[in-house]
Amino acid sequence: MQKGRMMYEGKAKRVYESEREDAYVVEFKDDATAFNGQKKGSIEQKGVYNNRISTNFFHWIEAEGIATHYLDTLSDREMLVKRVRIIPVEVVTRNVVAGTLATRLGMAEGTELSRPVVEFYLKNDELGDPLINRSHALALAIATREQLDLLEATALQVNAILRRRLLEKGLLLVDFKLEFGVTQAGEILVADEISPDTCRFWDAKTKEKLDKDRFRRDLGRVEEAYQEILRRIEE
Amino acid sequence: MQKGRMMYEGKAKRVYESEREDAYVVEFKDDATAFNGQKKGSIEQKGVYNNRISTNFFHWIEAEGIATHYLDTLSDREMLVKRVRIIPVEVVTRNVVAGTLATRLGMAEGTELSRPVVEFYLKNDELGDPLINRSHALALAIATREQLDLLEATALQVNAILRRRLLEKGLLLVDFKLEFGVTQAGEILVADEISPDTCRFWDAKTKEKLDKDRFRRDLGRVEEAYQEILRRIEE
Repeated sequence: MQKGRMMYEGKAKRVYESEREDAYVVEFKDDATAFNGQKKGSIEQKGVYNNRISTNFFHWIEAEGIATHYLDTLSDREMLVKRVRIIPVEVVTRNVVAGTLATRLGMAEGTELSRPVVEFYLKNDELGDPLINRSHALALAIATREQLDLLEATALQVNAILRRRLLEKGLLLVDFKLEFGVTQAGEILVADEISPDTCRFWDAKTKEKLDKDRFRRDLGRVEEAYQEILRRIEE
Repeated sequence: MQKGRMMYEGKAKRVYESEREDAYVVEFKDDATAFNGQKKGSIEQKGVYNNRISTNFFHWIEAEGIATHYLDTLSDREMLVKRVRIIPVEVVTRNVVAGTLATRLGMAEGTELSRPVVEFYLKNDELGDPLINRSHALALAIATREQLDLLEATALQVNAILRRRLLEKGLLLVDFKLEFGVTQAGEILVADEISPDTCRFWDAKTKEKLDKDRFRRDLGRVEEAYQEILRRIEE
């Protein structure tokens, strides 16, 4: 499968046309950014880890009936995905308080939530990806009420699957972000990636952070954390 | 009706026990604050205007079947209200983009929304009254899903009533905040106040601001705006 014209370059990925009209090639980069691009760096081999980790997660959730954009893994850094229009909403699901939720609600990081919290953030770098609610999304005509319901329900299903399977591997799924895309036929799919860039994983026993927070917070052993996640989910 | 012990002093009101076990006396002050208390001042006779303006609005919405905490207007600055426990959520309803919505969504102030936007803010000065969504409210055990539905539905009903009646008086209801309380019997009532402190009113023709934004933004003729609102709604 040859890559065609580059369609888009993001912070962590490039997207190319493919030989198929209905598919793109995603190339995972080693570049890392945090705090809306204010912190920049690189994590050695991150692109390779995230491609493989995402591949595993897409297989896990597809196997339990969740529709995703995943088609094939082409190489170390390349994934073939269905062509979609990305819905400009980041859907964050949380099981344990961390990051911005700790700040917003004044709750201690590590507090277990009695039920998962689902949040919508507007994908807009200029505005700093603000938290929005359903009526904002409707006012912006980003999605219909039914689509928002589907996004939330899918995020909760994905959460249940990943949380259970990760716990079997000694990992606590603290929170994660999903993006969704719409195909030309109007089908809504889980898109983007699912990786230590977009999830928080803690060792279930020691609570050691094994995700991009090691980069965000200068905790060291960043590559090792990505490698450890891959090792555990493939073991 | 004699006032008893002061139960609570807020930025714009004092709340006292009354001779009735099931009622409080609210006293409206002239103190004005903005930006979470960072800006402080006083608006001459504001307490008198807000008591009368709120009295009018509570009559309007009670007449159309909305349950409120309003019982009686005792004096220039005093209102008798049902004793409730305030739900720590501010419910903001918006018809036109202004204030924090302009910043959050990057929309121009004055843009008419295709449908009203309803927002929940956590009442917490220390956290700066952050925007929250339903799942945050459920996680914090602030209210049940059914109560949140009732809050939103009531806010939209109040919006429809106030918007229509204000337009007859040449006023555009841009947005407003409601607070709700729960009685000992578990009934949910519109509480607090409805006034130029808690609403944005623009002259429907000239779009002149006739509310607390004149204080927040140092626009001058602050008292005159409160007086003008009272004049129009009582004419």
